[in-house]
Amino acid sequence: MSKRSAIDHTRRKLLAGAGGVVIIQATSGDWIQVAGAADAADPQRIRVPGAGASKLGVRSPAEQPTRQPFAGVVSMTPLQDLHGTITPADLHFERHHAGIPEISPEQYELLIHGMVERPMKFSLADLKRFPATTRICFLECSGNLNRFMKSKITPQMLAGLTSQSEWTGVSLATLFREVGVRPKATWFLAEGADAALMTRSVPASKALDDAMIAYAQNGEAVRPAQGYPARLLLPGWEGNTSVKWLRRIELADRPFMTREETSKYTDPLKDGTARQFSFVMDARSIITFPAYPVTLEKGWVEIRGLAWSGRGRIARVDVSVDEGKTWTTAALQEPVLPKAHTRFRSLWQWDGNPTAIMSRAVDETGYVQPTLAALTAARGAGSLGYHLNPITAWHIGADGQLQYRGNA
Amino acid sequence: MSKRSAIDHTRRKLLAGAGGVVIIQATSGDWIQVAGAADAADPQRIRVPGAGASKLGVRSPAEQPTRQPFAGVVSMTPLQDLHGTITPADLHFERHHAGIPEISPEQYELLIHGMVERPMKFSLADLKRFPATTRICFLECSGNLNRFMKSKITPQMLAGLTSQSEWTGVSLATLFREVGVRPKATWFLAEGADAALMTRSVPASKALDDAMIAYAQNGEAVRPAQGYPARLLLPGWEGNTSVKWLRRIELADRPFMTREETSKYTDPLKDGTARQFSFVMDARSIITFPAYPVTLEKGWVEIRGLAWSGRGRIARVDVSVDEGKTWTTAALQEPVLPKAHTRFRSLWQWDGNPTAIMSRAVDETGYVQPTLAALTAARGAGSLGYHLNPITAWHIGADGQLQYRGNA
Repeated sequence: MSKRSAIDHTRRKLLAGAGGVVIIQATSGDWIQVAGAADAADPQRIRVPGAGASKLGVRSPAEQPTRQPFAGVVSMTPLQDLHGTITPADLHFERHHAGIPEISPEQYELLIHGMVERPMKFSLADLKRFPATTRICFLECSGNLNRFMKSKITPQMLAGLTSQSEWTGVSLATLFREVGVRPKATWFLAEGADAALMTRSVPASKALDDAMIAYAQNGEAVRPAQGYPARLLLPGWEGNTSVKWLRRIELADRPFMTREETSKYTDPLKDGTARQFSFVMDARSIITFPAYPVTLEKGWVEIRGLAWSGRGRIARVDVSVDEGKTWTTAALQEPVLPKAHTRFRSLWQWDGNPTAIMSRAVDETGYVQPTLAALTAARGAGSLGYHLNPITAWHIGADGQLQYRGNA
Repeated sequence: MSKRSAIDHTRRKLLAGAGGVVIIQATSGDWIQVAGAADAADPQRIRVPGAGASKLGVRSPAEQPTRQPFAGVVSMTPLQDLHGTITPADLHFERHHAGIPEISPEQYELLIHGMVERPMKFSLADLKRFPATTRICFLECSGNLNRFMKSKITPQMLAGLTSQSEWTGVSLATLFREVGVRPKATWFLAEGADAALMTRSVPASKALDDAMIAYAQNGEAVRPAQGYPARLLLPGWEGNTSVKWLRRIELADRPFMTREETSKYTDPLKDGTARQFSFVMDARSIITFPAYPVTLEKGWVEIRGLAWSGRGRIARVDVSVDEGKTWTTAALQEPVLPKAHTRFRSLWQWDGNPTAIMSRAVDETGYVQPTLAALTAARGAGSLGYHLNPITAWHIGADGQLQYRGNA
């Protein structure tokens, strides 16, 4: 079946014979008359000039994306309300450990010290003076699976701790050359300026790969909730390591074993050991439409969602409309960028029978998004905190209502 | 000279012997002690939790991009304040002919009629039900050269009628198949719902190429100033043809000759004839940093700017730091997308002597951005209204102040 025939004609209003609107088929050159005829017949026609050009373009009153912060520490991106791949900066997810500090750009300094030849402090102006780099990538909290809510779960509430921006800043490798990182320095500590003094240990090799100090997001200055005036950005790694309000980097020859990597952000395994430094976010996908709270009508629907991988590009997204029995390949929106939210779409004709729809991401390394059962079998039930990227199913009832009932 | 040595060390604060901050070189494994020492010595240390997670992330009070609307009809993007390539939706340039209409998404309808098999009206929900497509591209007003201001001109005031977004919507080709456009229909009229009843004639071939009806911009619903709830988007073509608040498309076998393409948006030539339907925006570039009002210091600076072409990808950007005598090739930020703002960067060491810096874009068709003199010679002095994409120079005085003095 071609895409052309995939749309149900009965949903559109065929105008032949439709009352109230005069349509004159254009057969002569008298185009102005035709336009005028359609115009005069239209009660919706706006005849009064609207508001003038604005200082800042505001949202329509009818389009007010909602984000209800949870316990003051989390705000989740409304994935079900978004299109494409960019997250507006004010809707980027937030996860704070001690709120949002206010930092003066004039007083801001980034200290780089430890196993370096020349310990230095960099002002914000200093950072902006270095050669800049820009990239689009996702940022995802490693705790991005809601295991608390049991019903009425939207994509936002289930997995809204992932967002995507175009980030600009200075490559950390550039700063490391500037301070003269010593060959034996294999790790660094990244410390935030917030009251939590958020600290994480990061392998120095990530700096030589693609780490950056970001001072801009989606074209403008990073916003305070995202680390203003500058944050670490580790593309593809768990969000918590992209330390916001970055104030200090210390080079060393071993990890620092901060509280954030012992009491948290470590994954207990079923054999009693723990997986430590699980930095990379594995490939994942989620259908963002249709999903709760949508009520589906019978007929054609374009299933839409996001897929991403911390290991590189998304290679394929499979979609199942029969509870995982069979899978088809979704279309991926170009350009498919590495470590980036990738929009997938797949046409489907719903016959009105209850079923479940789900998606499965495959990245360029061949990694296949697992089921929750497979994750649990591999790691044990004690590991259900971080790095859970299970296949997500939306169940559809005979009434067309979509519901989340736990992961497939 | 390598990039590594391109940074002036004297600008950074070397910490060896610096007063007021205790830095203990890490030579043992006692990292916590080292961290504590640095912490205790820092009066900037934040010890009180900040504001909680927010419903909408706001800008820092220190970062408030300014846009002063001109005569109620124009707001220009502050190019000198932006990084990367995405323009925040609320800073996208505005050019209105009758202000910003308020349109209810429930009442919105798009009529497609004329030389079609099945004239139809599409609601916003109808448009969203069709297969969607997403692309990043620039949108530029064809009048994007300020010829009125004579001094104190920023990139925003000079050429801020260009912006870039990630747009999502339905391909116009999809809708044309839906209504059954007749083979003889070679043009269509696009009509806006604003009180100006903005109308433009567009070749039907553009619909089969890459035209879309966009309902989303940078992830969220298109904002009212950008055509909410849906606008035409003609990538690479003069902005005025991407009709906002699109209410009607009429297919025909010839252009409609509306007032917007006779009294305006037509280019008089020196032989007394006029160039009509000059849709495509030619390749252009502008240095956004350093530019007025920056005062430059002697030493290394990364020259940064934007380049774009309505004909496809930017192939090369040349930069001159000696008033156009010699040129070097700038680095282009990947990915270089077709019909998209492309960030270019070029390192330069200013020796303190007065000069002028300028950029010249070359697109994949081989088109080279011209000088204003060449444009004037080709078109005559009467043509200085639309489609002016001259090489732009920023003059630098011995005091480091940058000034615009007319185009090179």
